[in-house]
Amino acid sequence: GNILKVSLFGESHNKCVGLTINNLPAGIKIPFEEIKEDLRKRRSKPEVSTTRVETDEVNFLSGVLDGLTTGAPLTFVIENNNIKSEDYNKGVVRPSHADLTAYEKYNGFNDYRGGGHFSGRLTAAIVVLGSVCKALLKQKNILVGTRITQIKDVEDIIDVDLPSLVSLNLDGFPVASEVAKENMVSIIKQAREEGDSVGGKIQTVVLNMPKGLGQPYFMGVDAYVSSLLFALGGIKGVSFGDESCFEKLGSQYNDQLRIENADIKYLTNNSGGILGGISTGEPLIINISIKPTPSIRKLQKSIDVLSGENVDLELEGRHDPCIVHRLIMPVEALVAFAIVDLMMLDKAIRW
Amino acid sequence: GNILKVSLFGESHNKCVGLTINNLPAGIKIPFEEIKEDLRKRRSKPEVSTTRVETDEVNFLSGVLDGLTTGAPLTFVIENNNIKSEDYNKGVVRPSHADLTAYEKYNGFNDYRGGGHFSGRLTAAIVVLGSVCKALLKQKNILVGTRITQIKDVEDIIDVDLPSLVSLNLDGFPVASEVAKENMVSIIKQAREEGDSVGGKIQTVVLNMPKGLGQPYFMGVDAYVSSLLFALGGIKGVSFGDESCFEKLGSQYNDQLRIENADIKYLTNNSGGILGGISTGEPLIINISIKPTPSIRKLQKSIDVLSGENVDLELEGRHDPCIVHRLIMPVEALVAFAIVDLMMLDKAIRW
Amino acid sequence: GNILKVSLFGESHNKCVGLTINNLPAGIKIPFEEIKEDLRKRRSKPEVSTTRVETDEVNFLSGVLDGLTTGAPLTFVIENNNIKSEDYNKGVVRPSHADLTAYEKYNGFNDYRGGGHFSGRLTAAIVVLGSVCKALLKQKNILVGTRITQIKDVEDIIDVDLPSLVSLNLDGFPVASEVAKENMVSIIKQAREEGDSVGGKIQTVVLNMPKGLGQPYFMGVDAYVSSLLFALGGIKGVSFGDESCFEKLGSQYNDQLRIENADIKYLTNNSGGILGGISTGEPLIINISIKPTPSIRKLQKSIDVLSGENVDLELEGRHDPCIVHRLIMPVEALVAFAIVDLMMLDKAIRW
Amino acid sequence: GNILKVSLFGESHNKCVGLTINNLPAGIKIPFEEIKEDLRKRRSKPEVSTTRVETDEVNFLSGVLDGLTTGAPLTFVIENNNIKSEDYNKGVVRPSHADLTAYEKYNGFNDYRGGGHFSGRLTAAIVVLGSVCKALLKQKNILVGTRITQIKDVEDIIDVDLPSLVSLNLDGFPVASEVAKENMVSIIKQAREEGDSVGGKIQTVVLNMPKGLGQPYFMGVDAYVSSLLFALGGIKGVSFGDESCFEKLGSQYNDQLRIENADIKYLTNNSGGILGGISTGEPLIINISIKPTPSIRKLQKSIDVLSGENVDLELEGRHDPCIVHRLIMPVEALVAFAIVDLMMLDKAIRW
Repeated sequence: GNILKVSLFGESHNKCVGLTINNLPAGIKIPFEEIKEDLRKRRSKPEVSTTRVETDEVNFLSGVLDGLTTGAPLTFVIENNNIKSEDYNKGVVRPSHADLTAYEKYNGFNDYRGGGHFSGRLTAAIVVLGSVCKALLKQKNILVGTRITQIKDVEDIIDVDLPSLVSLNLDGFPVASEVAKENMVSIIKQAREEGDSVGGKIQTVVLNMPKGLGQPYFMGVDAYVSSLLFALGGIKGVSFGDESCFEKLGSQYNDQLRIENADIKYLTNNSGGILGGISTGEPLIINISIKPTPSIRKLQKSIDVLSGENVDLELEGRHDPCIVHRLIMPVEALVAFAIVDLMMLDKAIRW
Repeated sequence: GNILKVSLFGESHNKCVGLTINNLPAGIKIPFEEIKEDLRKRRSKPEVSTTRVETDEVNFLSGVLDGLTTGAPLTFVIENNNIKSEDYNKGVVRPSHADLTAYEKYNGFNDYRGGGHFSGRLTAAIVVLGSVCKALLKQKNILVGTRITQIKDVEDIIDVDLPSLVSLNLDGFPVASEVAKENMVSIIKQAREEGDSVGGKIQTVVLNMPKGLGQPYFMGVDAYVSSLLFALGGIKGVSFGDESCFEKLGSQYNDQLRIENADIKYLTNNSGGILGGISTGEPLIINISIKPTPSIRKLQKSIDVLSGENVDLELEGRHDPCIVHRLIMPVEALVAFAIVDLMMLDKAIRW
Repeated sequence: GNILKVSLFGESHNKCVGLTINNLPAGIKIPFEEIKEDLRKRRSKPEVSTTRVETDEVNFLSGVLDGLTTGAPLTFVIENNNIKSEDYNKGVVRPSHADLTAYEKYNGFNDYRGGGHFSGRLTAAIVVLGSVCKALLKQKNILVGTRITQIKDVEDIIDVDLPSLVSLNLDGFPVASEVAKENMVSIIKQAREEGDSVGGKIQTVVLNMPKGLGQPYFMGVDAYVSSLLFALGGIKGVSFGDESCFEKLGSQYNDQLRIENADIKYLTNNSGGILGGISTGEPLIINISIKPTPSIRKLQKSIDVLSGENVDLELEGRHDPCIVHRLIMPVEALVAFAIVDLMMLDKAIRW
Repeated sequence: GNILKVSLFGESHNKCVGLTINNLPAGIKIPFEEIKEDLRKRRSKPEVSTTRVETDEVNFLSGVLDGLTTGAPLTFVIENNNIKSEDYNKGVVRPSHADLTAYEKYNGFNDYRGGGHFSGRLTAAIVVLGSVCKALLKQKNILVGTRITQIKDVEDIIDVDLPSLVSLNLDGFPVASEVAKENMVSIIKQAREEGDSVGGKIQTVVLNMPKGLGQPYFMGVDAYVSSLLFALGGIKGVSFGDESCFEKLGSQYNDQLRIENADIKYLTNNSGGILGGISTGEPLIINISIKPTPSIRKLQKSIDVLSGENVDLELEGRHDPCIVHRLIMPVEALVAFAIVDLMMLDKAIRW
């Protein structure tokens, strides 16, 4: 962060996950209800996710007095209550998880239990950060919304006006077309039955974006947002505006301009609300590709780093066959965080 | 940067573009020949680009003694010699350039001449940074290479072994298949004739990647590389590894593991060399989408921000119909920079 | 921090104080015994301090597995158990505390109870950070020590060889001369009896300093250490080496050089181990001035910011008449932290 | 910097010294006259300094259009015109300069000519930064001033009201008492005659300080200002407010408070305008100790790092016998910079 400095900590099977935010304005109401609601949306949907239920009680340790921020660093933790005392095999790494990279980076001292610090569990803390940031944005009528545009090969091609998109996510699985939604759910169910997993794509938009956010080059809106989004495990691609820009002619793609009633209007928004890294004031449009979740029950070739032996691995237990919808709240959280932080920075550089 | 701190400055039609690097190791040979060669590749290719020739003399102002880095901040500038004293119309903004966003962000005080600080001209300074970083990487046999995979609708679908890819870029327009290359060039020429422009896609790979680079979450290799790449004007999408991950099943996508002769082997590299933000040691694979360059000679609707009037704009002069190939050197520069910086950081955290 | 990133949080009368450290090397033993001992030294000495006893149980929330660092962010908290449910008068500010500045900065939303985030209580968390850093330094035989050189007008003018100084602090009130120590203690006692307070001076030294630490200008050893030390409430002056340098001639002050047995020797160390911001390898010598603690029982003129009225204030309760000795552990902690961080940075810039 | 990011570069006997500032507000007038005047004050005073005259032409390379900042990074350089092509002896290091530490840190690759990057010559670039920052502060009636309080053993004990202090520095050697000034000048002359040097002390104050600047702990006003000041070669001690705080009783030292005509008044300002790292709104008072300049003509023991031999060194040429007055402009520059940056940060954290 430029102004808001965030420090994320915790592990999946240790005491808690949590986060410290520095430089939050004083006197901000902690949005307790929205936090609960956002955490609920992040949690497993019984129909399409694991049946594991996390309780996610947020415990504010510092920086809050009578429900208001004090201006001092705000720290909260979410304790890990629901840990199954599993029989972890320390040496066996799960393919396409961070088990092996963490082991190698930290010379074997990493907390290997359930992915440790690399676990998706940490996104719960990120979601709380997001609820706070979205509450700040809402004061200025800036809205963040997301739709699922693809699960495996099921696309949702319907045109949605962006304001509707913002209010789409009531049940945590926001798809514009009901038919597409059914097909997506059924493809996820099928993956679960087969012990397999699927990926997909989402699109996040921000309405009523302020103009002029971002700094040229390395703190452009796109540069900053992408760096935050790739922090989320499972996200492998990020693009802004028209995803097929590379196939277009300049004469098709360029966002031409008109003045109407003394207001500057972009006739299209292929740029997704960013030019030269600076926000245009048009909706920010972010397209995100998510890989199939790596935890599958099918037989996989792996290794045991302690014994140095090859292993034929069949993961047991509850696994999400799809995390596309579970990433929506973390994605929105980081996007909201980026915008708040860039608004603060932009304010700072005006004398 | 984490260790290497870079400060980029300059404008298109002011005195120069340049850059300061802090914390470069002392005693590094400035790779003068490679700098010239990399700048040559970045410059216009008469066949597929504008006929404008930039001279690009790099003037090292500080941090170098007898051709070696001194350890002090290294600053160089590239003077702007070849500026046509054009009759800039200050108020008319070019669609899909940063002209309007810069005007709005800086309350009209921005240097509007030729895009000012937002000009692609600044990538020349980035290329020099890259030559220095690539020289550092070469000492450790780490190689960066790039291919053009698509121009408009012409794809290059050939399979290339990655080592070949690294040595593909001799003439600054690296395409694996000769046929595809011809088609790409002809589609660019056609765009030029029509006063239009085209975009495309490139793939950059890094061979002999060190294991364990990156820090969890916000300093992951993917987070960091993407934030640098989106700093480049024209780049609208970045993905790592298999671009179609979202369509795959987990059982297809996961990179399974074997131990062979006491070495850990990934059986595939769909992850593109990154798991949990940490490098696996497999080749880093980055896919980049580039929009059609916004400067076209066709009639466009625009506005004059000073008069507040609508304008029908027909840009004149020399314009690149495609900048896909011209972005290769800047992309490689920033990727090389990221890796050097992350290697330095990784070294730092080992006691 | 350059490499080690620290995030400090907590308040005096809220749940806890704590701290997150990023980028600690993995596999470091948490020095539980040293932490206890350092916290004990920071706590009140019944003879010369308040009789309040804090328990200071350190609870490691993340980043530790089986007593070893994992490489992930390390967070710990120290709960506030011993809070007297005092009847805080929210509006009355204590002179020369941060009560008024915090109130003004945070528009009245600050946690006003016992100084809130500005309380000296937070130095407990800093001490734990220091125990970890000192353990890292000890592995390389780098030692930190401190002596009290003055309490009010009682000076300790004895010459101490620096190795002895390092082992002086057994009981938390390290004075080289026994006579001076007695006089200091008695002057503190007298202040307590009178409801007043006294300040003083300490000198911290680091033995076996590595050469070449620090970066020119804004990350010099002196620049960095001073910025950390002034973070501690009560510290009003910091100097390096000979405190009276301003009175000396260059010919007296300059540290001349000789080569002896192929080793470079500084004939004196008036510079306190730093030249041009870079460590010379000679002992780092830091002189610190500490103001009298502002909590006194004497009648003081103050104000009530809520009512806008003048107030004649007589603080009640237990107050330290002197915090000079209680700052030693926090000072050493931050000095040790700076050196570890600069060593990591220096390692990073060598290719 | 928090918002203003500064990158300083250059060497004494290479092409230039210079600096890049990021995130300056757009539309700020470059104060060309004040820059000239401030550089003049920094330069040698024939009476008390070396007779060398530097021309100090400031060349703005980027970020300026028609004399106004554009919002883009502002870079300027000051070329080194007046370099005597001295016969530098690469291996012989000057005692109490950074010659040896630079040599050791950079493995002998440092630019050794005239101190290279560590030369006081770089303070010229800092002075220009200061002229810009002081111009910003003047817009808000915030004033920075300095007096010399001691040269060797000559003190200036006169009481000066702070507003007078701010307008004291007309000739670059600001002393409140004329008698003290004469004695100071004569002690400097004497040192010059003897080929020796003297140090001294200065006091810098800031009037009309905004309240609430600084962030608790590591970004307190004192922490930040001290870290910047120690960047200046020659500064060995920094304190805030009453220098003798350590000798006072709390009842003497505490700054008591009254409300007068609805305004909060501090009855004294022993704290020097800072409590808990946060500005009180009272004048910021900074006391600075400066060592005698290390370049003296007297015989000194030194070494030749290349030959590994002992050397009896007698420096020749023009040397400042005192740099106390020459540091005033750099000190004020960095203090002004800190305040501008903290004002920007404080603005950012208000939503």
